Order: sequence, then C-alpha cells, then structure tokens
Amino acid sequence: MNEKIGIGLLGLGTVGTGVAQIISSPEGRHPLVSKIQLKRVAVKDLSKARAISIPPQLITQDPLEVVEDPSVELVVEVMGGIEPAKSLILKAIKSGKSVVTANKAVIARHGEEIASAANEAGVYVLIEAAVGGGIPIIEPLKQSLGGNKIKKVTGIINGTTNYILTRMSKENADYSVVLKEAQELGYAEADPMADVEGLDAADKISILSGLAFGGTINRSSVPTKGISTLQNRDVEYANKLGYEVKLLAIAERTEKAKDSDPSLSLAVRVEPTLLPREHPLSGVNGVNNAIVIEGDPIGEVMFYGPGAGAGPTASAVVADILNIAGIKIMGTSDTDLDPLLSAFSWRKCHVAETRETLQKNYIRLIAKDSPGVIGQIGKIFGKNTVSIESIVQFDASDSGAEIVVITHEVNKGCISDALSEIKNLNEVKKLASHISCL
Amino acid sequence: MNEKIGIGLLGLGTVGTGVAQIISSPEGRHPLVSKIQLKRVAVKDLSKARAISIPPQLITQDPLEVVEDPSVELVVEVMGGIEPAKSLILKAIKSGKSVVTANKAVIARHGEEIASAANEAGVYVLIEAAVGGGIPIIEPLKQSLGGNKIKKVTGIINGTTNYILTRMSKENADYSVVLKEAQELGYAEADPMADVEGLDAADKISILSGLAFGGTINRSSVPTKGISTLQNRDVEYANKLGYEVKLLAIAERTEKAKDSDPSLSLAVRVEPTLLPREHPLSGVNGVNNAIVIEGDPIGEVMFYGPGAGAGPTASAVVADILNIAGIKIMGTSDTDLDPLLSAFSWRKCHVAETRETLQKNYIRLIAKDSPGVIGQIGKIFGKNTVSIESIVQFDASDSGAEIVVITHEVNKGCISDALSEIKNLNEVKKLASHISCL
Repeated sequence: MNEKIGIGLLGLGTVGTGVAQIISSPEGRHPLVSKIQLKRVAVKDLSKARAISIPPQLITQDPLEVVEDPSVELVVEVMGGIEPAKSLILKAIKSGKSVVTANKAVIARHGEEIASAANEAGVYVLIEAAVGGGIPIIEPLKQSLGGNKIKKVTGIINGTTNYILTRMSKENADYSVVLKEAQELGYAEADPMADVEGLDAADKISILSGLAFGGTINRSSVPTKGISTLQNRDVEYANKLGYEVKLLAIAERTEKAKDSDPSLSLAVRVEPTLLPREHPLSGVNGVNNAIVIEGDPIGEVMFYGPGAGAGPTASAVVADILNIAGIKIMGTSDTDLDPLLSAFSWRKCHVAETRETLQKNYIRLIAKDSPGVIGQIGKIFGKNTVSIESIVQFDASDSGAEIVVITHEVNKGCISDALSEIKNLNEVKKLASHISCL
Repeated sequence: MNEKIGIGLLGLGTVGTGVAQIISSPEGRHPLVSKIQLKRVAVKDLSKARAISIPPQLITQDPLEVVEDPSVELVVEVMGGIEPAKSLILKAIKSGKSVVTANKAVIARHGEEIASAANEAGVYVLIEAAVGGGIPIIEPLKQSLGGNKIKKVTGIINGTTNYILTRMSKENADYSVVLKEAQELGYAEADPMADVEGLDAADKISILSGLAFGGTINRSSVPTKGISTLQNRDVEYANKLGYEVKLLAIAERTEKAKDSDPSLSLAVRVEPTLLPREHPLSGVNGVNNAIVIEGDPIGEVMFYGPGAGAGPTASAVVADILNIAGIKIMGTSDTDLDPLLSAFSWRKCHVAETRETLQKNYIRLIAKDSPGVIGQIGKIFGKNTVSIESIVQFDASDSGAEIVVITHEVNKGCISDALSEIKNLNEVKKLASHISCL
C-alpha cells in the first residue's frame, strides 16, 4: 500500500499542534508515521498565530468540512468540550470513519452511545489520550492485560491536584496559597473546579473502570470528593504518621453483590486518600500521573508518567492513529473489527452502595484535653466493630487536644455510625476531618 | 467466527501451567480468552504430577507433534533454552504458524533470523513475556510509543539481582550471605551465574533496544558487569550520599556517530549503577522490575511490576495469544501483517565505543590519611577535565582513609585516564571501587 492514510484534525490547540508536529516530522519515529498525512484541519480562529505551519488550503473554520472530506479516513478530535465534539464524533462514525479522541468528558458521559454507533458502523474509536496523558494505559488495559481478572484500578489521574498536594506536603503550605501559584504557573486553570473538585478524575476513573471490568458504569453515580477543603494540618499529621495524601481514583470489585442486581458490583470513588509510604503511588509527585492495576494472575503493575501536556498527549493520540493505520495497511476493509481494539461491553457493572464497602480511615477530632477522652472514643469505636490501628494525641492548644485515629479496614456504615456517636460526646468539640486511607 | 483458535504448548513448567490455567478458566477475563483452546501440549516427563489436569490425549513427549499438529494454529514456546526451542520456533514459522515465546535467550541471540523467517512466512512472533515478566513493555514499545523518537531505555530487568541489592541496602548485608538466602528462598537459581553476572539483563536490554530504536544490536557487544563483586561498603556509602545501587540495563542514543558507520549509535550496557533517590527507579525493590522510557515528545514514562513468576509471565504470554487471536478473528488470512505487531527492523544500529560515552562516576579510593591527598586527587581529575560533584573522606582506619568521589557526567576515556594517574600516586594505596552513576 503506497497511498497515505488521510487524517482530519478537529482542533489545533496545544494537543492538535503536537499531533501535527509528529506527523510532519516522521524521521526517527516508527516508519508507519510516514504513512499518515494531514488532509484537513478545523480551527476556531483562522487568524491566530500557530507554532506549526499548515498549508492554508487544509484549514477551515467549519469542522463538518473535516468530517465530510472524502480524503479524510480517520478523524482526530482534540477540540474538547461536550458539544459540538460529541455530534462530530458520531457524524464521523456514521460516515464509516474511525475516530481518535482525547475527550474524556464526552467518553465518560456518552461512551456507550459512541461505542455502539462505532460497532454498528464497523469502525474504531480509540481514546488513549483521554486518561493519563502520554502514559500508555488504555491500550494495555484493552490488550496486554486481557488474560487477567482485574481486581482493582487505583490511580493518580489528575496532574493539577497532584501538583498542589505535592507542594502542600513538601512545603507545609496551605491549599489556597498553592492553588494561586499553580494558576500563575499554568498548572491550574483560572476556573479550577473540574480539577480540584475531582470531576476530571471521576471522568477518567469511569473510563478506566469500563475497560478494566468490561462494562460501563454510570458516571454520575461515582462518589466524588475533591481537595478544596483539605486542610494543611491533615497533610502534616498524615506525613508524621508515615503517609502521603493523594487524590486517588479507585474502582474495585466488591465481595458482596446485591441480590437484586446480578451485575458486577464495583466500589468506585474519587477522594483524597492517605497512602502508606511503601505504596508505589506515594512517590508519584508533581504533575505526574500513575495507575496501578491489580489482577489475577499478574499481581500488581504500575504505569507512570506525565499526565498532561501537549507532547505527552500528542504521543498518545498518535499511538491510536498508528493502531488504526496498522490495521488499514493490513487491508482489512471487509473484515470484522479486532475485538481487542473495538469498544464493547461484555458484562453489566454497577457502582456499589457506599455503606457496603470496606475502608481504612483517618479521623481527626478536636476534644477537651481531659484524661478520659481517648478511652471513651475507643469504647465507641469498639462497640461499632471499628478496629483501631492507632490513636495519637497531637499537641494540645487553647482550643483543646487534637486526636488522630487511624482505623483498620472497616465497613463504611460502621464508621459512620461510630462517628455520629462520638460527635455527641461532651468531651468532643468537633469532628475536624475524616479521610480515607489505603 | 465460532470455531476456536487452536493453541499448541511447548513446555508445561510453571509458566506453561499458568497459561493453561488461564485458558481453561475464561470466566471474568476478556471474552476473547474463551475463543482459544489448548490442542496439544509437549512435556519433558509424562509421569510428572501436574497442578492442572490436561486431557492425556493432548499430551506428548515429542514437541514436533505439537508444531505439526494441523489443529494447532499458534505455537506457544515456554520450554526455555536455546535448543531445541530455536529450531521448533523456526519450524512453526515455516509451517505458517504464528509463535508466542517467553524465550529471551533465543530472541536476544537469534531474533533477526527469526523475525526475517516470520516476515517471509507472513506470521507473527510475539515476545511480551521475554522481558519484564508480566509488565506490559514490549507491546507499549511496539505500539503505544510509535510516535516518539526514543532517546533512552533504562531498566531494572532482573528480579534476582534486584532482590539481592534491596536486601544488601536495607540490611547492610554482604552479597554472599544474601545470595545464599535468596537461593534457599527460590529467588536465585542454584547456578546463579546468568542472573548475578548480568547476562540475563543483557539479553533483555538487547531485545528492548532493538524495539525502541528499530534495529537489532549485536548481543555479544553489550558491555556487561554483574553484582557478584559489589562490596557492601559501596552500597552503604552510596546510601549515605543519597543514592541507591541497582543493576541497570541501559540503551541510549549517543550524540556522536562514528563517521565510518552511518547507522544509529547506541550506548548500551548492563552494570551496577548509583541512582539518586529522586529517580523513579530508585524505589523499585525486591523482585520487582521497572523500565523507564524517555522519548520525544512523551518525556519519561515508567512501567513497573512483577518481573518474574508463573502468574505474571503467563499473563504476558496470554496477552500475545490474544493479540494474534484478535487478528485471526478479524478474518485477515489473506492480508498483510500489521506493521506494529510484526517484527521488523527499520534501521541499522550499532553499540558505540565505550570511551565515547558520557558517564557520572562513583569512585572509592583507599589512601594514606595525609592532609594533601584530596588536593592531589582533585588536581589530577581537573587536569583530565573530570568535573567533580563531591569528595567525601569517610572514617579513616588502620588501613588508611577512604575517599569517595562523585564526578559530574564526563567522557569515559577521561575518567579512565585520570584513574590511571591517581593509582600511581604515592598517597593512594588502592582504587577500591569504580561504579557508574545516573
């Protein structure tokens, strides 16, 4: 096959530019890169100065022209946002064109609709860049780990929050101070909501969960807690007790399936979490991402690298382009889809009730500095079958004593019952913090 | 396609058994697992008790029967050793059957011959299990990172030596003591040569280098140094200076290509190396493996996990089986090979002269405890354009003072010239150690 494979690019921001740069400089890369060619590019603003020179006749402001161009065999969507991205993806699929997208928001919310349209049309929708930036994680989950029963996916999958948490930990700095600096440095958006409230991580863990367990979950049922209310003091105490605090996104099988629901029961959540220093994710700092996959028989593997940025994300987009180009070069136009690459669910999954799941806990209480208080707290935990790993009283001040409790892994319902009782103790002024632990 | 894809297994040791166990229990794994079926199995000893029950009519002592069985479409070689493994692989290829192998020794030595036979026959030879046990590393290098210009591959790719080094570091224990315990625990072979002398790691870095840089290197030209002469004292001093000692396997582009050789110049080596604690590989402990890939534009990604063991290795073998099964299911029998999965070189590479390469160094000298000695040493390094990061004198004993020098990155030739001069100094009794640093 000597003809090149025509690519249409929707969006020429930092990622789109990165993709165009790779395609236009194939030397030293996999020779398949030289078999792909940019045929049409949609931009928002024709007059904007670009870091790459694209022949002007390829550029249009109308994304439909890209999707409908007959020389475009493969549509690359890197414009972001839900609409018009979603409609353009579906339009491309219906025209029989495979799609590569970095759009986690669209895939997390409309993945099922898109996958079913793609399977009907006999095309691929590949999404390596949607999670973990440049880190190969989607393809390993779809292909390399297929022989495993996956038990758990644990990820640091938002670079902005990991940057903030790393600085809070290393410099003993306040959240609001670090956030402001992160915004100045370009590591956080002017409106940081989607990152700091965990919404971006929830999009991504929904996608990873669907691939790891073979069935989509409802994005809106993922319990999500961000880092905006995390107190510097808790990061400090966690460090003293041998832990790091990270915003973790987790999806794992739960033991108990509800009788009424025969589908696979998954505990899925995004929340700040204490990690013991021995955990491979505890050393993941700055804007890096990492994802740990636990499966049978593989055990535990980790994928680590830059979770965002033009270069890494472009690398992931090109990986997907090459995968589709490789299949096109095989000359398989009249064949079935490769079941490892095609997007399909092979079982039903649901997000488990929170009260059912087991969790280790970090709890900080403000109490009166009186001798009996630790005994009383311990007694209530015991009564609620909450087993305790450690209770430490940190320096008492005018406002009272600070008591930090780390529990063993216990039922979330039990811990919640115990805390309700403890809050009512006369000696306890306040439940200051309650954070999950691994 | 309803018919199952027939697998022939050469070897039923721990890995072969692990593969058979996955195939015989598809529930909860990728649905493609249920499309593959064990058709024939070659074992060394028919009478041996097995952890898995295989229908006796499938078992044979003659591996040729497996390769030649018409119901076997895909041959899985997990017997190990050079022969008869190599001949059986070539025989399978010539019969038009794709091969999955975990045999790093065969691929490192005869990869080019095998790849060219496979391409001629239009079949795949996949080798995910040959490096890094269960860690997906071969497929990411072949597929997910194809858009990158790879600059450097750095790996901890031998679990036995990493286990020994981890214990030497944590317990301040002697090499010979730890080796003996590792042998008792089954982490080291009775004959540990291939592991502790770095030969296994050299096989693996040769394979990784070929994939990362697109051209095979001569396995026998990889400078290889093991850990058997590593002194506990150097591990201790390295730790004190903020480093860990790991057996690293490295392949990287060098700046300067020799005029006489237009092929890509690579610095490749296996040797004990000091890693600063901030380096992501420094926390890789025990029998775990990890590989860091540096590329443009991705930056640095790391793949981490269990580097050996029946389960992880079987997971990697099954990943390859599924890849080939996925392509077979597409119905591509009359098409070309997928250029991302097929084994081919796309440029020439050679291993650079050692003197040309740059290296940071750890040097331990035994010197007379006299005031001028550090000055004299510093002067000789300076004269040879060796720039020094630190010189530390550790506790002097009866036998003299111990001086540890860490250099900046310098030409290997210069450091070697400087050390020759230093060894001739009256005040220097001995060059006790010279170890590379990252």
